[in-house]
Amino acid sequence: MLEQQAAVDRVFHALGDPARRAMIDRLSRGPASVSELAAPFSMTLAAVVQHVQVLEQSGVITTQKVGRVRTCQLAPEGLAAAERWIAERRSLCERRFDRLGAFLDEEEASPTPPTNKRKKKR
Amino acid sequence: MLEQQAAVDRVFHALGDPARRAMIDRLSRGPASVSELAAPFSMTLAAVVQHVQVLEQSGVITTQKVGRVRTCQLAPEGLAAAERWIAERRSLCERRFDRLGAFLDEEEASPTPPTNKRKKKR
Repeated sequence: MLEQQAAVDRVFHALGDPARRAMIDRLSRGPASVSELAAPFSMTLAAVVQHVQVLEQSGVITTQKVGRVRTCQLAPEGLAAAERWIAERRSLCERRFDRLGAFLDEEEASPTPPTNKRKKKR
Repeated sequence: MLEQQAAVDRVFHALGDPARRAMIDRLSRGPASVSELAAPFSMTLAAVVQHVQVLEQSGVITTQKVGRVRTCQLAPEGLAAAERWIAERRSLCERRFDRLGAFLDEEEASPTPPTNKRKKKR
C-alpha cells in the first residue's frame, strides 16, 4: 500500500512539470531519442536528461540505449496509476452529489405535511 | 485552446504536491472546513490556506465562507480535465502498441517465402 502510494507520488511529481508533460505528449505519438525530445526546448541537454530520468524513475516512460542513442518510449501502465487515482476521487465525489440530488428530488416529490417549524414561519 | 492548456497546467500543478493530493483525498469523502483540512498536517494554518488557494484557483475545489468558517468542496469537473489529459495520451500510445501487435501477428501468420537476405544467411 505504501509502495503503491510512493509510486503514485512519483507519477504525479513527474506530471507536475510542464516540460515533462510536453515530453509525455510527444512520446504518446511514438518513441523518440533524447535529442529529439530536447529539440522543442530552449534548455540544456543536461536539463532534458534530468527530466527524462524523472520520467523513467516514475515508470511513465522506459528508455533503451543502442550504441550512442537513448530512445524513450511511453509506458501506458505508468500513466494509468495517476489516471486511476484521479478517477477514484472524482467518482467518489460524483456519487455523493448523485445521492444528494436523489435525496432532494425525493424530498420535493413526497407530499409531506408542513412541519411545526413551517407553520411558525407563516 | 491556450486557455484550456493553462487550465490543465493549473490542475497538474495543484496535483503535483503530496499535501494537496491528501486534501483532495479528504474532500472526495465530503466537504470540510479549512481547519478540518489542516488537522492531519504539521504545518501552519497559513501554509494550509495557501494550498487551499492553489486548489481553488485550479478549479479542483470550490470554497464558500459562511460566518467565520470557510468550507471546501471537491469540484469533480476540475479533476476530470487532468484525467482526460492522461487518458488521451495513454490511449494514443496503447492504440499504437495494438497496431504494432496486429502487424507482428500478421507477419508471423503469413507464409511468405524466404527473402534473398535469408537465403544468403544460410
